[in-house]
Amino acid sequence: MMRTCLSRSMSLFGWKSSAQGQKAANTKPVRVAITGANGNIGYATVFRIARGDLLGPNQPVILHLIDLPDFKSGLKGISMELNDCAFPLLRGVVSADNLADGLKDVDYALLIGAKPRGAGMERNDLLKDNGKIFVETGKALNDHASRDVKVIVVGNPANTNCLIAQNHAPDLPRQNFTAMTRLDHNRALYQLSKKFSVGLEDIQQFAIWGNHSPTMYPDTTHTKIKGQEIYSKIDKEWLKSEFIPRVQQRGTAVLNARKSSSAASAGNAAIDHIHDWVLGSQGDWTSMGVYSEGDYGVAKGLIFSFPLITENGNWSVVKNLKLAPESMEALKKTEAELLAEREVISHLLK
Amino acid sequence: MMRTCLSRSMSLFGWKSSAQGQKAANTKPVRVAITGANGNIGYATVFRIARGDLLGPNQPVILHLIDLPDFKSGLKGISMELNDCAFPLLRGVVSADNLADGLKDVDYALLIGAKPRGAGMERNDLLKDNGKIFVETGKALNDHASRDVKVIVVGNPANTNCLIAQNHAPDLPRQNFTAMTRLDHNRALYQLSKKFSVGLEDIQQFAIWGNHSPTMYPDTTHTKIKGQEIYSKIDKEWLKSEFIPRVQQRGTAVLNARKSSSAASAGNAAIDHIHDWVLGSQGDWTSMGVYSEGDYGVAKGLIFSFPLITENGNWSVVKNLKLAPESMEALKKTEAELLAEREVISHLLK
Repeated sequence: MMRTCLSRSMSLFGWKSSAQGQKAANTKPVRVAITGANGNIGYATVFRIARGDLLGPNQPVILHLIDLPDFKSGLKGISMELNDCAFPLLRGVVSADNLADGLKDVDYALLIGAKPRGAGMERNDLLKDNGKIFVETGKALNDHASRDVKVIVVGNPANTNCLIAQNHAPDLPRQNFTAMTRLDHNRALYQLSKKFSVGLEDIQQFAIWGNHSPTMYPDTTHTKIKGQEIYSKIDKEWLKSEFIPRVQQRGTAVLNARKSSSAASAGNAAIDHIHDWVLGSQGDWTSMGVYSEGDYGVAKGLIFSFPLITENGNWSVVKNLKLAPESMEALKKTEAELLAEREVISHLLK
Repeated sequence: MMRTCLSRSMSLFGWKSSAQGQKAANTKPVRVAITGANGNIGYATVFRIARGDLLGPNQPVILHLIDLPDFKSGLKGISMELNDCAFPLLRGVVSADNLADGLKDVDYALLIGAKPRGAGMERNDLLKDNGKIFVETGKALNDHASRDVKVIVVGNPANTNCLIAQNHAPDLPRQNFTAMTRLDHNRALYQLSKKFSVGLEDIQQFAIWGNHSPTMYPDTTHTKIKGQEIYSKIDKEWLKSEFIPRVQQRGTAVLNARKSSSAASAGNAAIDHIHDWVLGSQGDWTSMGVYSEGDYGVAKGLIFSFPLITENGNWSVVKNLKLAPESMEALKKTEAELLAEREVISHLLK
């Protein structure tokens, strides 16, 4: 059953003739797992991780490519291509067709693989089908991964999938299970930068609240541009009828244009998510789905996207924000959706 | 006819709160064109360029995505995804369905688009069909690109396509037209590192000679590992029956495994090619197809891969190498193929 191949010896590949190179050469590699590695998002992501985009140019990596047995040949091809890139930081590629082998000792897990929603499929069926996958993933992480593994769920419905995986990994820190809303966050930043003709670096204190779904709430009520609050000056009609729907529906717009869903931008957001979680958000806000401790009245235990500050590998919810009535209303709506999702998969929770 | 959209204002997006950021913010962006941008290699390449992999973290870029009118919607989707990545160095995305608009003022051109070889198609037909595309591309570069544009041809048959484009761009420096053999070079480095259990940084003076085709010659006769020459110690049977065929046939092996040709590794090699051309090979050798001035008896004017040193944006052929008899024989073989290709498309040359 086991299908692994370590295709590079472990002592290889520091950076070429540089002090940085020496540092990388002497740094223990971390193991980064990607499920659904043979899919479009996987293919758009693994090469960037192998290059060092996830954790910076001093951190060697060993990639664990995980996908279904049907994609064994595809993973072999990706592994060949990874080696053919001659990336100095890539110290090995493990291919696996099962979670136990693939997640063994991993320090980071990007859970991209999930069943897509087929034509005519009910959302509840999707929740249940994917739920089963994330029961198994949670158990495998609990049994095989590093005790400090950091997990991001990308596969949809991401928040509820994350909840299920976390629930089945009781021996791991629950704060290490997160769901991706960074793609929505990045999409919103671009829309704001375009609207206000400013640079990304000029925008602070933006966040996505709630579920990674059309109920998500892109919140500009605390946002500053060049240090100035903008909400009082912002055109509320634009906000309501253009900005918010555009962020919420961006995935569909990309799908319609490309005839294929967002892959590179999703992979990029997953990389940004882990990068900033580990290396810090530099005092600004970021957005990740994390378990609720009840802040802002959100039901405890839900995986909910909050405004976060990250530092030293930890996240913390930004506290004591005054929420506008429209924000409260939006939070209630996305919370209600997550509560309903939890209800649908409640039989999968321990 | 014209279809361009500059989807980011020009003054935006320096790096976030860093000295490096200030440097990037004050640096004039360069324009980088990619033909065949909607294809698999294009998709695997443009996001990495937008992130800064081509020219480093201080050089802002404006991407010019070029593909056929049929792929207009696809390019729109890629442009949306590029923006959704919120890359600090990306200052704009231009989409074009024609070469004149797409190549206007570009500083770098990655010519990836080419007609693939269909089932039952003769190689000579492929040469002629692609030849016509590269006549038009050469003319458009000559008429519209920056006078210093640096060109890499990735689309096959790359060397001869490059020859044609160069021939139709008489107003541009002919040394700025190059064909990609870096993928072969990187593939060979990996095979050597694996065989000798050493790091990439331990290998010097390797090169690919000739055509990017199965006649290419991966030359280890001058290669050093950790400063020591290896050719006298190398198992010649391994070299002849494993290493050389494996490098020459790697594309087919990847295709067989993935059921899709090398995309991310090809894009990576194109990025490495330009990166090292512009930023230098640090005294080591690299491989690019460049016009022959007759070095090593290679027919003048052919686009031929040589061992090169790059510095300050210029390449120079490594001179005065003593070629082994087996190297001479291999060079003659790949030169003969390129001469035959030139003959097939001679009607397309001025």
